[in-house]
Amino acid sequence: MTYALNETHDPKLKSFVASANDGVTDFPIQNLPFCVFSRADIHDAFRGGVAIGDQILDLAALAKLHLLSGVAAQAVQACAEPTLNRFMGMGRESWSALRLALSRLLSEKNQHEGTLRACLVPQSEAEYALPARIGDYTDFYASVHHATNVGKLFRPDNPLLPNYKWVPIGYHGRASSVAVSGQKFHRPVGQVCGAGQTVPVVQASKRLDYELEMGIFIGTGNALGETITIDRAEDHVFGLCLLNDWSARDIQGWEYQPLGPFLAKNFATTISPWIITTEALAPYRSAFTRPADDPQPLPYLTSADNSAAGAIDITLEVFLETAQMRESSANAHRLSQGSLRDAAYWTVGQLVTHHTVNGCNMQPGDLLGTGTMSGPVEGSQGALLEITEGGKKAVALSNGETRTFLEDGDAVIMRASCVREGAARIGFGECRGQVLPARV
Amino acid sequence: MTYALNETHDPKLKSFVASANDGVTDFPIQNLPFCVFSRADIHDAFRGGVAIGDQILDLAALAKLHLLSGVAAQAVQACAEPTLNRFMGMGRESWSALRLALSRLLSEKNQHEGTLRACLVPQSEAEYALPARIGDYTDFYASVHHATNVGKLFRPDNPLLPNYKWVPIGYHGRASSVAVSGQKFHRPVGQVCGAGQTVPVVQASKRLDYELEMGIFIGTGNALGETITIDRAEDHVFGLCLLNDWSARDIQGWEYQPLGPFLAKNFATTISPWIITTEALAPYRSAFTRPADDPQPLPYLTSADNSAAGAIDITLEVFLETAQMRESSANAHRLSQGSLRDAAYWTVGQLVTHHTVNGCNMQPGDLLGTGTMSGPVEGSQGALLEITEGGKKAVALSNGETRTFLEDGDAVIMRASCVREGAARIGFGECRGQVLPARV
Repeated sequence: MTYALNETHDPKLKSFVASANDGVTDFPIQNLPFCVFSRADIHDAFRGGVAIGDQILDLAALAKLHLLSGVAAQAVQACAEPTLNRFMGMGRESWSALRLALSRLLSEKNQHEGTLRACLVPQSEAEYALPARIGDYTDFYASVHHATNVGKLFRPDNPLLPNYKWVPIGYHGRASSVAVSGQKFHRPVGQVCGAGQTVPVVQASKRLDYELEMGIFIGTGNALGETITIDRAEDHVFGLCLLNDWSARDIQGWEYQPLGPFLAKNFATTISPWIITTEALAPYRSAFTRPADDPQPLPYLTSADNSAAGAIDITLEVFLETAQMRESSANAHRLSQGSLRDAAYWTVGQLVTHHTVNGCNMQPGDLLGTGTMSGPVEGSQGALLEITEGGKKAVALSNGETRTFLEDGDAVIMRASCVREGAARIGFGECRGQVLPARV
Repeated sequence: MTYALNETHDPKLKSFVASANDGVTDFPIQNLPFCVFSRADIHDAFRGGVAIGDQILDLAALAKLHLLSGVAAQAVQACAEPTLNRFMGMGRESWSALRLALSRLLSEKNQHEGTLRACLVPQSEAEYALPARIGDYTDFYASVHHATNVGKLFRPDNPLLPNYKWVPIGYHGRASSVAVSGQKFHRPVGQVCGAGQTVPVVQASKRLDYELEMGIFIGTGNALGETITIDRAEDHVFGLCLLNDWSARDIQGWEYQPLGPFLAKNFATTISPWIITTEALAPYRSAFTRPADDPQPLPYLTSADNSAAGAIDITLEVFLETAQMRESSANAHRLSQGSLRDAAYWTVGQLVTHHTVNGCNMQPGDLLGTGTMSGPVEGSQGALLEITEGGKKAVALSNGETRTFLEDGDAVIMRASCVREGAARIGFGECRGQVLPARV
């Protein structure tokens, strides 16, 4: 079930943290996303936090104050741990109770303001960790536009396979190499085999790319052998983040048949530190519809709630910051702007339900990627592979440089936000990663 | 480096546990494989154990006796934990030191025999758990015979793809649904689309299969961005087990393009409880050679040690026990017999090195599957898909039943052993799993 709007979504609500009220922050009091952080200066223990303006409310410090009661008190205790897995596994009632309590505590006229100010840590002084121990990471392929664009490059005669409009296509990814925003990684080395060649060579990837995705953190899981029905699917979703599925296209092209991507993807995956809860996203839901000529989803992927509000209006942006831009303090170049609603052919609930239709078990903290979120129009493609048509058309950057694929020193920055009449603007923070030269 | 033979491999060595000396047990004193177990009657804490004959040496109990010193003492303390991850991460020197200490303690004339007997638990009174928390599970495709047999069914015109003899093909699997021998799972439900059909249906799989594989447990890992060279690859391997990669062929056929197997495999994977250490396998190593017409492995996959001793002589067997056989106390029917050496086109070291050539990080307790180990001759195929040629030729079982794919109630039992002149016979124990009816 999607969440009903409640007092935590009220756009008139203000916080005693002034920076939360400026109308441009990603983190007004209506957002309240979760992270795991520590203080960068003293490297103290990692623990849960919630963003408010340019601050983090330290949930371990809050837990010690014993200001909360009941379910919310139990929930904040779980958030004091170095990963949010136990909190995620507590379920929707607990997440909601804590959100409501935090919304009230952080609101403008709170009697505990003085005490709570002592629990704030400036985001500028924080370092982040993965918000959960990720047991399994699954990547989907949920944008029909991306599937079509990529299909044209790999299989010009057969871009969209017959199963695409029936099956939410997914595959398992590597959990060990998922890291939080700020990740820097070496350009991967691997086997590549040029067109017309029959003997591969081992070299640093020359076609290194990013993929703009949303990450989906599973909250409560299911036992092996049980399924999560579409009506209940969103109850199992803790929240969403940004995800960059770095991809080495030349390694991918040679290795991916017949069992799918492997070393082309598992060298690094970057996610934003903040998980925007499903409840925070309630004001930005939309009807989920399909083109009239397309098959309707099979019954196990269909519910009234999913049709009425399965989609989410999230604006997605990707920026490229080259080494030269950093040196000259130039602004990063925006490579794309699109929206989750336009890009996604499957809803979050459908991904979860499909994943478990065979009895596969999900666990708290499992991560799903949506797959590259490319929209239907020029300028909304979520990967260089699509923007440059497989490297054939270079992109001209704002500072005069050009790119077909990523070069050493390039940083890719992803941002997302939700804006709707009658609701506060909320954002996802930043998902940033940088390419280092290959190791020799 | 492969291990040199030492006193622990001496075939004349006997244990004070008489059942270890009968010449037919899988677990003579030369084996000493590791598990995690508890007593089934009282459900006490899971902890590490080592097999000796029909007994388990309780390593948590042993640790309390303080009979060991130095590295071995630290190692046995780690084995008292509910998973072996920390022990696995200690590395080759620790594994070897503990093996030597255990070999001496369990030998025929040990002064502590009386004390040690109190640390023995009969295997018949044990229940097993996964020996490690599996962070990531990767499945390879390392038998060229399997790849060719399956390729013929899925792509008759193009059975073996051009990358096969260059790339150790692998993909990521699901860690959450890996369970230990004894696993019973419901027949998976999913989308299938018959030949000539354009609209899929959702139903219980009608083409449920097993896959005979070896599992490889990673000991010490590597940092993200670093590689494990072929010369050092085996130093990172803790040991081997049996692995059944249950597969729903009809679900696989519809979903696997373009990103590989997903729901067709992730509903269940079963491994044997015992990890046979790489050191225990030292007497059974063989030269690794390729057919003269095949390309030699690329330099990053080549080393003198790998060529001289990269292969391992392990006999592999699969048995089918139907519900009818159980009721009539008939023997299980042997479906296949083959060997790892004949089946594997890539060595264990090559799989590890390839996996990390791009900087992908491995962690202690990660699990690799070899892929289905089918040999070159009739009777050595490791899956019903191959034995029945895609379900076209039914197998006649010893009790008069027939099978094309697995039926409800069927149990699949895998066994493995190493036999060589001048060495003790060692075995892997049993990997057993059973199909329950689909949930409705």
